[in-house]
Amino acid sequence: MKILEDRIRRDGTVLPGDVLKVDNFLNHQIDPQLMNELGAEFARRFADAGITKILTVESSGIAPAVMAGLHLNVPVIFARKHKSLTLTDHLYTAKVYSYTKRVNNDISIDRRFLDAKDRVLIIDDFLANGQAVQGLLDIAETAQISVAGVGVVIEKRFQKGHQLVVDAGIQLEALASIASFDHNEVQFAQD
Amino acid sequence: MKILEDRIRRDGTVLPGDVLKVDNFLNHQIDPQLMNELGAEFARRFADAGITKILTVESSGIAPAVMAGLHLNVPVIFARKHKSLTLTDHLYTAKVYSYTKRVNNDISIDRRFLDAKDRVLIIDDFLANGQAVQGLLDIAETAQISVAGVGVVIEKRFQKGHQLVVDAGIQLEALASIASFDHNEVQFAQD
Repeated sequence: MKILEDRIRRDGTVLPGDVLKVDNFLNHQIDPQLMNELGAEFARRFADAGITKILTVESSGIAPAVMAGLHLNVPVIFARKHKSLTLTDHLYTAKVYSYTKRVNNDISIDRRFLDAKDRVLIIDDFLANGQAVQGLLDIAETAQISVAGVGVVIEKRFQKGHQLVVDAGIQLEALASIASFDHNEVQFAQD
Repeated sequence: MKILEDRIRRDGTVLPGDVLKVDNFLNHQIDPQLMNELGAEFARRFADAGITKILTVESSGIAPAVMAGLHLNVPVIFARKHKSLTLTDHLYTAKVYSYTKRVNNDISIDRRFLDAKDRVLIIDDFLANGQAVQGLLDIAETAQISVAGVGVVIEKRFQKGHQLVVDAGIQLEALASIASFDHNEVQFAQD
């Protein structure tokens, strides 16, 4: 998506360890107009997928997910992160390891909000190692709901999350796909 | 705001301890169409306030804040919550006590995103004891930026957050204002 690639080139910073810092428009300061355009694009790409609900994980997934929900006209559920939980009977939970923070978190969704008839779209800001997406896929499997697709704002295609979703046979849409950070510059994948 | 009051009456649950549970449309499952209407209403009420940025706190404030930012055409910054931080030179931080979770958190905003010329609108999902809003007011004071207003989706007017904002001389707009939970029913304030 050209406006997103242009924005990443202009405002993104490549840090050591293949980290792309985009906290000036995506995951700390947010550009709502851009989020609205990203949401419209997700809606266009998944228009015929029969989506009934969107799942994301707090906090950075919420803005693009809510805009996608606005354009697809479906509710959005954000999974909550916790250290670890007792008393989880009313929750679907999954373990998620964060490579950036090097901690294990539980993520959870209240059972009331998922229904066997649901067909969900998973949205997140980044797809890197795929841990958050895997956690939501685990929850979807436990809840016995079907996953229609995974939509991410930015994927680092060379890390393992991309292949994880493809191998699961799930439609993956990345609005910007990064092939490499060679020479500290963002190289986008050409499809 | 009538559509919000109707939604609270229909989908909200009053729990012991003056807790209003609205996790089916506001702070776990989110209704994006409703958020869009709330955002438009915040924009209408603060249209002439000269807002340059919106501040909120992760996670439940993000959806209404981003929709308000869309309609006011300004960036949104969400403060991050942490246990407590070392190495904070590049951050504005404040302490926030959560009455519901009974823990102290630090909230923080990167210094790069606030500028002495900024005039901010603080948005949050709930105003109860006002701890989160006070934290953002503390950050605004440290950053020497002016606060044009506080907009909350739901206020519990009988708790101390309402008076805290009024006493600070700041325009407060609550889209639904709850006067009491007498007899386990939501009683809205009449203005």
